[in-house]
Amino acid sequence: MGLSDVEAGFRNEAGIQTVVAVLRQRLGERLQTGEALRAQHAHTTTYIPAQLPDAVAFPQSAEEIRLIVRACADHQVPIIPFGAGTSLEGHVNAPHGGISLDMAQMNRVLEVNPEDLDCTVEPGVTREQLNTDLRDTGLFFPIDPGANASIGGMTATRASGTNAVRYGTMRDNVMAVTAVTATGEEIRTARRARKSSAGYDLTRLFVGSEGTLGVLTSITLRLQGIPQAISGGVCPFPSVEAACNAVIMTIQMGIPVARIELLDALQMKACNAYSKLDYPESPALFLEFHGTEAGVAEQAELFGEIAAECDGGEFQWTTEPERRTQLWKARHNAYWAALQLRPGAKGISTDVCVPISRLAECVVATQDDIAANGLIAPIVGHAGDGNFHVLVLIDTDEPAEIAAAEGFVERLNARALDMDGTCTGEHGIGQGKRPYLNLEMGEGVAMMRQIKQALDPDNIMNPGKVFSFDR
Amino acid sequence: MGLSDVEAGFRNEAGIQTVVAVLRQRLGERLQTGEALRAQHAHTTTYIPAQLPDAVAFPQSAEEIRLIVRACADHQVPIIPFGAGTSLEGHVNAPHGGISLDMAQMNRVLEVNPEDLDCTVEPGVTREQLNTDLRDTGLFFPIDPGANASIGGMTATRASGTNAVRYGTMRDNVMAVTAVTATGEEIRTARRARKSSAGYDLTRLFVGSEGTLGVLTSITLRLQGIPQAISGGVCPFPSVEAACNAVIMTIQMGIPVARIELLDALQMKACNAYSKLDYPESPALFLEFHGTEAGVAEQAELFGEIAAECDGGEFQWTTEPERRTQLWKARHNAYWAALQLRPGAKGISTDVCVPISRLAECVVATQDDIAANGLIAPIVGHAGDGNFHVLVLIDTDEPAEIAAAEGFVERLNARALDMDGTCTGEHGIGQGKRPYLNLEMGEGVAMMRQIKQALDPDNIMNPGKVFSFDR
Repeated sequence: MGLSDVEAGFRNEAGIQTVVAVLRQRLGERLQTGEALRAQHAHTTTYIPAQLPDAVAFPQSAEEIRLIVRACADHQVPIIPFGAGTSLEGHVNAPHGGISLDMAQMNRVLEVNPEDLDCTVEPGVTREQLNTDLRDTGLFFPIDPGANASIGGMTATRASGTNAVRYGTMRDNVMAVTAVTATGEEIRTARRARKSSAGYDLTRLFVGSEGTLGVLTSITLRLQGIPQAISGGVCPFPSVEAACNAVIMTIQMGIPVARIELLDALQMKACNAYSKLDYPESPALFLEFHGTEAGVAEQAELFGEIAAECDGGEFQWTTEPERRTQLWKARHNAYWAALQLRPGAKGISTDVCVPISRLAECVVATQDDIAANGLIAPIVGHAGDGNFHVLVLIDTDEPAEIAAAEGFVERLNARALDMDGTCTGEHGIGQGKRPYLNLEMGEGVAMMRQIKQALDPDNIMNPGKVFSFDR
Repeated sequence: MGLSDVEAGFRNEAGIQTVVAVLRQRLGERLQTGEALRAQHAHTTTYIPAQLPDAVAFPQSAEEIRLIVRACADHQVPIIPFGAGTSLEGHVNAPHGGISLDMAQMNRVLEVNPEDLDCTVEPGVTREQLNTDLRDTGLFFPIDPGANASIGGMTATRASGTNAVRYGTMRDNVMAVTAVTATGEEIRTARRARKSSAGYDLTRLFVGSEGTLGVLTSITLRLQGIPQAISGGVCPFPSVEAACNAVIMTIQMGIPVARIELLDALQMKACNAYSKLDYPESPALFLEFHGTEAGVAEQAELFGEIAAECDGGEFQWTTEPERRTQLWKARHNAYWAALQLRPGAKGISTDVCVPISRLAECVVATQDDIAANGLIAPIVGHAGDGNFHVLVLIDTDEPAEIAAAEGFVERLNARALDMDGTCTGEHGIGQGKRPYLNLEMGEGVAMMRQIKQALDPDNIMNPGKVFSFDR
């Protein structure tokens, strides 16, 4: 099966049956073929139709992953790594069948080095599990994509979330991985030094490769000290432009803001209704600051001055945990609140990212597009990074609504690319964003293909993801 | 010329002569073949014997680089990109001859986007030139490897330096590059969004690839706001262990220290003699803090408390620029001071990087090794990263001294690898560290080779660097 067979719907029936038989013998109950379980492993939080794997394997060690990969390599059968199933662009679909590798039983925290602020975990560890495990060390793992995703999945999609503006993305926080490659060899991409100039950056090559270059068997992560103090608050703005200007000034002044989230007026309206709040129904910024007691107070005060300069309303902030949670309630419930704007509808979540100088322009043009096309689609943004999400609420039983949403996503991506932005800030390409990767990267995609071809010539590693064939 | 021809000393004489003739016609005076100039382009700040290129080309545009690469590709002639010639591991040597591409005339700052805190430069721009150019914007480019290196060279070697502990390395600060690949195509690895999950991280693949995958034609960099205030100071410690404990506590507490440099007792002695200072001749930490007036004062005070807890002497610090410069004088002159420890000797500068919990142990064992072998070799470390340099002072006319230094470097690397560290924190592999890359990366090197083979099958891009053939 070569790269170009993928879109042709090639399915290696004989190979699949052989591998399923081999693995059943080796894994026993830890190989499942029931339809309900297989459906669960294809149908994740995405509007893309489910494509079921032929079996779901539950490995318990890197050695078992090597065994599975070797069996699949011998018979040219696809392998689809599966973490928590929270990806949004069809990453875990099996367009050509094959074996879903569920990492639920690879969920050990292997090593924590408090003095070095790092840890090594198996790919099935979730971020909440990790932070619970770290509680006694005074350290935490900062990346928070919202969902309780697995560390393996977050690594594979280069996830980030609300506090990337301060702590970076998975790109910045993965120090090394071990991975089983398409030949069944296990490699380690780096050691535990905080920096290195030793050869090609294989770690970063695996981060964001979406399972197409190998199966992660462990991930070494950078950790942070839990801040002595946290302050947080909310500030309304008369317009998206005014809010974005405040963001730009905040970043330019070097205020080390931990989170700076934009909610548009529609999202604020949804939050008021859902959580019985009475915020002004205008765009708002939600902020969080990490540091010393004095430091977080200073940061909040500096931001207050910036907000006033940008025509913002009153900036309410506090260091008190309960009051902070209350202030941030609207942000925390944004997704569920948004769904209530159209009861019964499903949400298509899409994301783009632009240079922050273009954020206001991109959000406003997107709001105009939403209005012009009669869509219901609130916007939430990780404004400090120029990254925003649109949740398009549609009836997925109506083909016309799906088509309208797809048309909107296409225009949204074109708009972001026109502004020197990217078609995905944090969700990844998967199946859904493949056409836009070509538009964004041009000849760069050819280079990605050359790498894929060199490392996985039979295209058994999560085939049909990242690369598009309709060029 | 394949990968394996390289160590065999293959030299494509006919191809080289043809390309020199072709390029002379196209570039005129901007192709030079005089021996002095060619020697200058091979012999950099390294102990590795010079291997001269056959000609030095001075391209002025990406289009000219494409033309040169195509000529070289047609005739399988090596291309060796040359920035400021400050690399330390033989990166610009031409073991098989070929064309040195001097980027001195590709030195334009192409674009500065103050609102987005980024800029795009040609590869020949030096970091000092860039910071001079940025002065009026209130922004600066933080990476400081010491030498006034070119941005292209810094990107190619994944450089860092004194303030990587706060601002990261070139890995973290390069947002995108354009590069001419081995086929003569120009690709762009990313757009200007601050983050992206769009496909493989080609940017990071080029950062640190040492010219072996293509020739950089532009680099987009992240910039920082010039801090409102800077404080700096010096603190002596009774031992390397005590100093390293203070470093670990500083990092664990999340103090956002901008620089935290370790000088060992011998280096302090050298600095006192050279700069007529009277610091205690014991290990010392040199620190710098960036932030608001209140913030840098708080950071310095917190560090003072940590130093006291770790048996440090008085921590003298100030926000006054002149007094800061005076305090830091020893650090700034460390290299020249060290050379005076043995007048007439040359210095072999080598670097390793270990997890910070192992830094004290690694430095002390290295000092013991230096003493046991009668070497003169002061140590300076970017302690917050676990990275340190040893400057071995030898008479390079004495083969026995070169052999002793090489034996020392071999043991130093073995020691760092034993501690889960890397054979180079910031100098790169070049020619000098090739054997250690194999020891460090194992099967990972095979993956690097597969990538190199896929992207540069004729091995014309800086051949003989990064990869070792004595496995």
